[in-house]
Amino acid sequence: MDHDFSKGAAWIRGEIVPIAQATIGVTDWGLTHSDVAYDVVPVWEGAFFRLGDYLERFEASMAAGRMQVGMGRAEIETALHDMVATSGLRAAYVAMVAARGTPIIPGSRDPRDCANHFYAWCVPYVHVVKPEVAEAGAHVWLSEDVRRIPDDSVNPRAKNYHWGDFTQGLFEAKDRGFETVVLPDHAGNVTEGPGFNIFALKGGMVITPDRGVLHGITRRTVLELARAEGLDTCERALPVTELMEADEVFLSSSGGGVIPVSRVGERRFSNGAAGPVALRLRAAYFAALQDPVRRTEIDYS
Amino acid sequence: MDHDFSKGAAWIRGEIVPIAQATIGVTDWGLTHSDVAYDVVPVWEGAFFRLGDYLERFEASMAAGRMQVGMGRAEIETALHDMVATSGLRAAYVAMVAARGTPIIPGSRDPRDCANHFYAWCVPYVHVVKPEVAEAGAHVWLSEDVRRIPDDSVNPRAKNYHWGDFTQGLFEAKDRGFETVVLPDHAGNVTEGPGFNIFALKGGMVITPDRGVLHGITRRTVLELARAEGLDTCERALPVTELMEADEVFLSSSGGGVIPVSRVGERRFSNGAAGPVALRLRAAYFAALQDPVRRTEIDYS
Repeated sequence: MDHDFSKGAAWIRGEIVPIAQATIGVTDWGLTHSDVAYDVVPVWEGAFFRLGDYLERFEASMAAGRMQVGMGRAEIETALHDMVATSGLRAAYVAMVAARGTPIIPGSRDPRDCANHFYAWCVPYVHVVKPEVAEAGAHVWLSEDVRRIPDDSVNPRAKNYHWGDFTQGLFEAKDRGFETVVLPDHAGNVTEGPGFNIFALKGGMVITPDRGVLHGITRRTVLELARAEGLDTCERALPVTELMEADEVFLSSSGGGVIPVSRVGERRFSNGAAGPVALRLRAAYFAALQDPVRRTEIDYS
Repeated sequence: MDHDFSKGAAWIRGEIVPIAQATIGVTDWGLTHSDVAYDVVPVWEGAFFRLGDYLERFEASMAAGRMQVGMGRAEIETALHDMVATSGLRAAYVAMVAARGTPIIPGSRDPRDCANHFYAWCVPYVHVVKPEVAEAGAHVWLSEDVRRIPDDSVNPRAKNYHWGDFTQGLFEAKDRGFETVVLPDHAGNVTEGPGFNIFALKGGMVITPDRGVLHGITRRTVLELARAEGLDTCERALPVTELMEADEVFLSSSGGGVIPVSRVGERRFSNGAAGPVALRLRAAYFAALQDPVRRTEIDYS
């Protein structure tokens, strides 16, 4: 039995195991139909951040997907806590997942017949953009070929694994030497990227798309921090043309907080450096991670 | 060690194992990003049907997803053959899968850094619509709430696991007592359903959508069989209004061949029974499965 938890841990079928031993069956509809509701809560300096908010959204995603895993919030919270404590990780990416499972009635093609199940896993903290890149200002590619999956096809507010559009967009971005990608929608508005929301700052107003995107918890934190900084905020459609005329652009993610953007395609912002407001919000985000009211301390003993 | 292959078998990491033992890791991007290219070839009466065509499409799907699994067509064919032979299944649903894997460089978010891998699995033959339902004419729901994922978001011709739109559509259909669902696109055309293409027959012309759908091998077989029956065929956009005015409607799937449809929503076709042309094509499909030229016999000894 392997007891190396340095690369992460999983809670699966009631047991806590090293991450390399956590698997799901190749016929699980969670895989074959990408039929999963999930969420990711960050652990920072030994505590979950805004755990209640992440659990609430996870429950909403499960409800949207009509998943019933037979575990209440307290049991899920205990599973996450015990798993992270066992891993010993003090800064972690913590995923909670509800998968459709397989039909109880053999041969059924009815999603209502499946035995849904819960599992969770954690790995060392993930930065969607490396900190040194974020601090210099990330270069973001706005996809030319790929449009974000519309919200009347797959609901982006129920956090899900449908990343085919992001992956094709990432190939497009990486081939051109960009760090990551943002996808437009079919109406010419900006949506989001793989693992993050996007913001434009224009004349003291922080604007972020409201439709066709995940309503990120970090997005919410950033809007709160922006208002605390005296900025106005607005959630609405953000046309690509307006993004390109912004004073500053930045991203938000539970994997790295606020990520300044110095370039979108050929357009450079803030003279090709991280913008001052984005950097201030980035610092404010890392300070907020220390807020005892929002922290759920983990007992590693 | 379990040696019960009655429920199916898998070829994974070079080994053939009972299906229940075939798993992939919970951090594999094949799962977490639904980043998979796959295909399914039917085995009927001890032989693969049109194996070369399915392998060709699988290779095209892998190329579209920029997957390299380090196995050529001959090796994949050998893996499939040995797996089905070991299972003993003479009628089977045989899946071949290329998964993105995980980054070789820890912490990378670049899909180019991942170690792609191949696996395969087979289970007893799957009917997407039960034969007794198909023969009476299936009741199909045309989704009111969900639109098929557009082809500039996720390419439907590269067979993939992005089924979120189908799953929501299936809930809508099943809640209303329908067998399965067909999704419209954003322009009011019919696309496809979970595991099948759709056809309309009008005045001797067989029409099937060409864009925004998988180009099914069974779809191709049906078009060939229709022409052999003296019918004209046409691949083009099929407006929902035109589908509703058809003489007959039917589906095609490697999981069941030609499936007559007696009802789409409130509209009944062929007086609420399976249509005569659809039944003739259904019989022709099962006859075609016997065609030695298209069969690759499996050596079970």
